[in-house]
Amino acid sequence: MRVWQILKRKGLCSTALNHAAILGPNLPDVWIPPNTSSTMDSRVDVQTATIIDGKAIAQDIRSQIAREVCRMKASIGKSPGLAVVLVGKRRDSQTYIRVKLKACDEVGIPSFIAQLPENCTEYQLLNVVSGFNDNPLVHGIIVQLPLPQHLDEEKIIDSVSPEKDVDGFHPLNMGNLAMRRREPLFIPCASKGCIELLLRSGVEIMGKKAVVIGRSKIVGLPTSLLLQRHQATVSTVHAFTKNPEKITREADIVVSDVGIPNIVLGNWLKPGAFVIDMGTNPIKDPNSRNGYRITGDICFKEATKVVSAITPVPGGIGPITITMLLSNTLDSAKRAFRFP
Amino acid sequence: MRVWQILKRKGLCSTALNHAAILGPNLPDVWIPPNTSSTMDSRVDVQTATIIDGKAIAQDIRSQIAREVCRMKASIGKSPGLAVVLVGKRRDSQTYIRVKLKACDEVGIPSFIAQLPENCTEYQLLNVVSGFNDNPLVHGIIVQLPLPQHLDEEKIIDSVSPEKDVDGFHPLNMGNLAMRRREPLFIPCASKGCIELLLRSGVEIMGKKAVVIGRSKIVGLPTSLLLQRHQATVSTVHAFTKNPEKITREADIVVSDVGIPNIVLGNWLKPGAFVIDMGTNPIKDPNSRNGYRITGDICFKEATKVVSAITPVPGGIGPITITMLLSNTLDSAKRAFRFP
Repeated sequence: MRVWQILKRKGLCSTALNHAAILGPNLPDVWIPPNTSSTMDSRVDVQTATIIDGKAIAQDIRSQIAREVCRMKASIGKSPGLAVVLVGKRRDSQTYIRVKLKACDEVGIPSFIAQLPENCTEYQLLNVVSGFNDNPLVHGIIVQLPLPQHLDEEKIIDSVSPEKDVDGFHPLNMGNLAMRRREPLFIPCASKGCIELLLRSGVEIMGKKAVVIGRSKIVGLPTSLLLQRHQATVSTVHAFTKNPEKITREADIVVSDVGIPNIVLGNWLKPGAFVIDMGTNPIKDPNSRNGYRITGDICFKEATKVVSAITPVPGGIGPITITMLLSNTLDSAKRAFRFP
Repeated sequence: MRVWQILKRKGLCSTALNHAAILGPNLPDVWIPPNTSSTMDSRVDVQTATIIDGKAIAQDIRSQIAREVCRMKASIGKSPGLAVVLVGKRRDSQTYIRVKLKACDEVGIPSFIAQLPENCTEYQLLNVVSGFNDNPLVHGIIVQLPLPQHLDEEKIIDSVSPEKDVDGFHPLNMGNLAMRRREPLFIPCASKGCIELLLRSGVEIMGKKAVVIGRSKIVGLPTSLLLQRHQATVSTVHAFTKNPEKITREADIVVSDVGIPNIVLGNWLKPGAFVIDMGTNPIKDPNSRNGYRITGDICFKEATKVVSAITPVPGGIGPITITMLLSNTLDSAKRAFRFP
């Protein structure tokens, strides 16, 4: 008797053609915070890593963007425009948006901001997005996430015109990022920043083992897809991964997008690895002005003794990511105006 | 001096904001065929694997589909319809289509076929697809790949309505497959077949290590994405992967989609692994009727001594894949008619 017949008798075939079952359970990623006591051999105590100066790299790229914006204005009298949609009063969202608008201002990109109350209706929000879709002065639209629970995030993202989706979160852009021989109109900013950083740092990606820890649509998923387009052998680690430290320890390139302070300890990392820390985790700090400070996913103190290069938090990949938003907005305007 | 400044001096920053560079080189996967001499310890010579009977599983699912098609016809007088577009006279494509049409016939799904000459224009082909997009009798459209060189495959696939994209190759469906908390309208047939087989076989996917060898849009890419939705820890192996055998040897679930006979040898596989062989490789065989026979990517003789279960070629995942095309077409018609 064949295995499927046995299983059928056992009633294990009941899942046949169940679309939801085929797509897999929609589980939240619940990470177990690590034992934060140092795991490093106390005798090893030498910093080997280059600390990447993300601010300086971002500044360098922003000056290039500013020059391009000037050139566009001078030759065709047009500017790229970015529209930002904020719903509610989340403090972190307000901070992110302030930073993005300041960056636009720095490089001469006019920005438009629509603020909606926490209790706005989906219809109101869709109308705002649709207005920006039709506005010829706007070449990029970002809807600051997360949205309040009563709003359908996917529906809102789908309503952003793929031609103005500078966050790269529209499924059409994500699909074209995933599929070889295709090109998305926009690459999500964090992923674009990662590759930009690796290329600038002269890291050979092709054939390297890369581990991406986390799989959010904002960072983990597109970064896995993009690293694979660069011919890396990519393993994606998530909350359901057994022995994540073992898999991560084999990687030449590590990108972390978990959201838990110091979850990646020194003994998770391969000596000489190139590490990009996407975590931006607020932790209490009585000594800091607002009573908290931002830290990454990687145990920085331990990692610097093991890896060859690492992005600090803050001042690492963050400023580069914001810069990629400006880059995407500029690209979008160039496309719209057929400006070389 | 910071690393990026040193690199800049070395001229390593020239790649800044180069869209093509960020997306990575568009390289073909050139696999090096293995040394096919047996790598197994000659003392080990016992078959441990269950050979999955794909034909029997497919037959079981097809009878369920046939019952559903009857129920639809009986209660609303409508049938699902599948349209197939074939360009040129490739012998393999003609065989695949013959098999698909026969399967439709078996379950009572009417099929429509459009055959275009090898030298047809893109405009002609787009018109045919658009006709099927508008045809209310058609709920699924497949354009048999590969297309002749002079036709833009991506452009043609994009022209298929996502609501009738039963192959699941439209970037909008692929993007929605990649992104959690979203659902594609269709899952590519081979990937859907893999998960269906794993679920039927009672294989626990969550937390398991899965290796997908190959990354085509037809099999490798969507299967990696779908296994990850099931909370497997997925590594994608491709032609640029160093030591693919080492990575594959760690996997509890192996899906191979390379297209090279017997490239995966016994020593690539973990004892007890569940192996799905997607390869359909014609090799010369003077003893067979047409002078060739179909074989898989996995060295079957060696694998059966190592793994716990394996799909043979032919008669393994192939018939299940074809069956998923029927399933997708039925699902599409149910959606169109709001038929529960």
